[in-house]
Amino acid sequence: MKTSAVCVLGAGLIGGSVLRAATDAGYEAWGYNRSEAGVRAARADGFDVDGDIAAVLRRAAAADALIVIGVPMPALDSILSDIKEFAPGCPLTDVISVKAPVAAAVHRHELGAHYVGGHPMAGTSESGWAASTSDLFRDAAWAVGVDPGTQVEPWSRVARLALDCGAVVVPVIAAEHDRAVARISHLPHVLAEALAVTGAGGGDLALGLAAGSFRDGTRVAATAPDLVRAICEPNSAALLEALDDALRLLTDARDRLAADHTLGPLIDAGYSERDRYDTLRRWDITDIRPGDHNWLERLREAGQRGGVIRVL
Amino acid sequence: MKTSAVCVLGAGLIGGSVLRAATDAGYEAWGYNRSEAGVRAARADGFDVDGDIAAVLRRAAAADALIVIGVPMPALDSILSDIKEFAPGCPLTDVISVKAPVAAAVHRHELGAHYVGGHPMAGTSESGWAASTSDLFRDAAWAVGVDPGTQVEPWSRVARLALDCGAVVVPVIAAEHDRAVARISHLPHVLAEALAVTGAGGGDLALGLAAGSFRDGTRVAATAPDLVRAICEPNSAALLEALDDALRLLTDARDRLAADHTLGPLIDAGYSERDRYDTLRRWDITDIRPGDHNWLERLREAGQRGGVIRVL
Repeated sequence: MKTSAVCVLGAGLIGGSVLRAATDAGYEAWGYNRSEAGVRAARADGFDVDGDIAAVLRRAAAADALIVIGVPMPALDSILSDIKEFAPGCPLTDVISVKAPVAAAVHRHELGAHYVGGHPMAGTSESGWAASTSDLFRDAAWAVGVDPGTQVEPWSRVARLALDCGAVVVPVIAAEHDRAVARISHLPHVLAEALAVTGAGGGDLALGLAAGSFRDGTRVAATAPDLVRAICEPNSAALLEALDDALRLLTDARDRLAADHTLGPLIDAGYSERDRYDTLRRWDITDIRPGDHNWLERLREAGQRGGVIRVL
Repeated sequence: MKTSAVCVLGAGLIGGSVLRAATDAGYEAWGYNRSEAGVRAARADGFDVDGDIAAVLRRAAAADALIVIGVPMPALDSILSDIKEFAPGCPLTDVISVKAPVAAAVHRHELGAHYVGGHPMAGTSESGWAASTSDLFRDAAWAVGVDPGTQVEPWSRVARLALDCGAVVVPVIAAEHDRAVARISHLPHVLAEALAVTGAGGGDLALGLAAGSFRDGTRVAATAPDLVRAICEPNSAALLEALDDALRLLTDARDRLAADHTLGPLIDAGYSERDRYDTLRRWDITDIRPGDHNWLERLREAGQRGGVIRVL
């Protein structure tokens, strides 16, 4: 570990929160933001954020900073070109909500050698620097990539940053991450949008009667549409699989309700699985150190079984 | 108004909360509960709850109490038989989540003359007396029936009880209520169950990565299965309509995602309708008094347009 510098590209909800949390944890942290308004807002809060990507990245190269890509998916290619030009040797991670497409882009830009995918599982329906907080990742799961070929040094720096931001590390390969988040993050968005539309189809009477179940079920539909698209659409293959599973369940339930006036099987299964979620205990991975024989494969397998890293 | 006595049958989450709120508001309030455990729990908290339905209802008849049916749908017929036997002349309402099937049962038991349907839109995923609170209905919508033939005196007593419990009154006829709640209360339950099952299909890895969107989207799946069935299944016709609307939206979105990798139309619509919900302003109905010419039809029409009663 030569340095503990962190350079965050994109100071929105997630990137901004990384910048805040890393600063709080004692890192030398600075960042880039494309919009002038975002730069001004971050500076007004005392953070070192600049709109000059070349200058920001040259500083990262000089300091051997860990670069954290916090821009939305549509801006990824452009930011990778800049990194390739100004800081190609820096350890590199990202906090984007999908992992395989990011890894593919990183490799297209020949930046794979020092790259480790990341994804902190936290957020709100708000976005932008104004929504960022230093404790957004407190006790959150932070997925850290263990794909074949991952190097020990950048991996350790990414995992340590996640821990220093208050999260626990979930080791996972890109493809499995994407299939998992399709089910527990992207599908919830799609169902929330459909519920909002169907509920509003009942008019002001229905919306006026709506209480907790509708409010909670549609909460993430309040997220900015561009952001939801940027989160869900790059993961379309895995999302389609999850959506087809949900459609099958709902269609079966519908047919059963029409035929026998019962929703029993779906309700019993849903209750049981929600209980499984509520009672899930994360267990600590303590016996695998980065660089150990077969460490990537062993971490992957531990992560599949619900293991997390709390200390490095 | 001869009296302000209230007799609550069923001291679970909703009935128990009515008993608490009515007591706090100064009503002489007592109740019945079938299970001995519920009776003991309510008594331990200082409430007058008894397991002898005949005695409880004879007291209601003597005091001209407003009877509030708070038992789940499957227990309705039995409790109506008891009311018919021991207190057939009392004003009668209920807090069951569906209105047309309750009204039909009430009329089968020839108790329609003094009946006014009710439904406070509040709850938690907990159930039973232990979950009841006196402020459950604070600022909640409380649907009060304005079906043709409704009498002024029982209507006013039901509406006043709702207001005294801290709620606002939404006037609505049974069929329209049932169609509305299918969309904003029963459909959310069905989607939550399907999300819980589909999410858990990703195993412990997926559940371990799950954050706010999954937690909120599945919250009501933690409700006891028997209760969810008792809430949703009696409203199967309206729920089927809402479910078919949602299935159509989701299938269209699925096909669009598969063909064009976009979820744009659904996401834009969902955002817009959630915003409509967030910015919905309840307006006060102030110019229609119970008993006025055409009052039932006028209240119904005002309720359809999002009007509520705050003062009687």
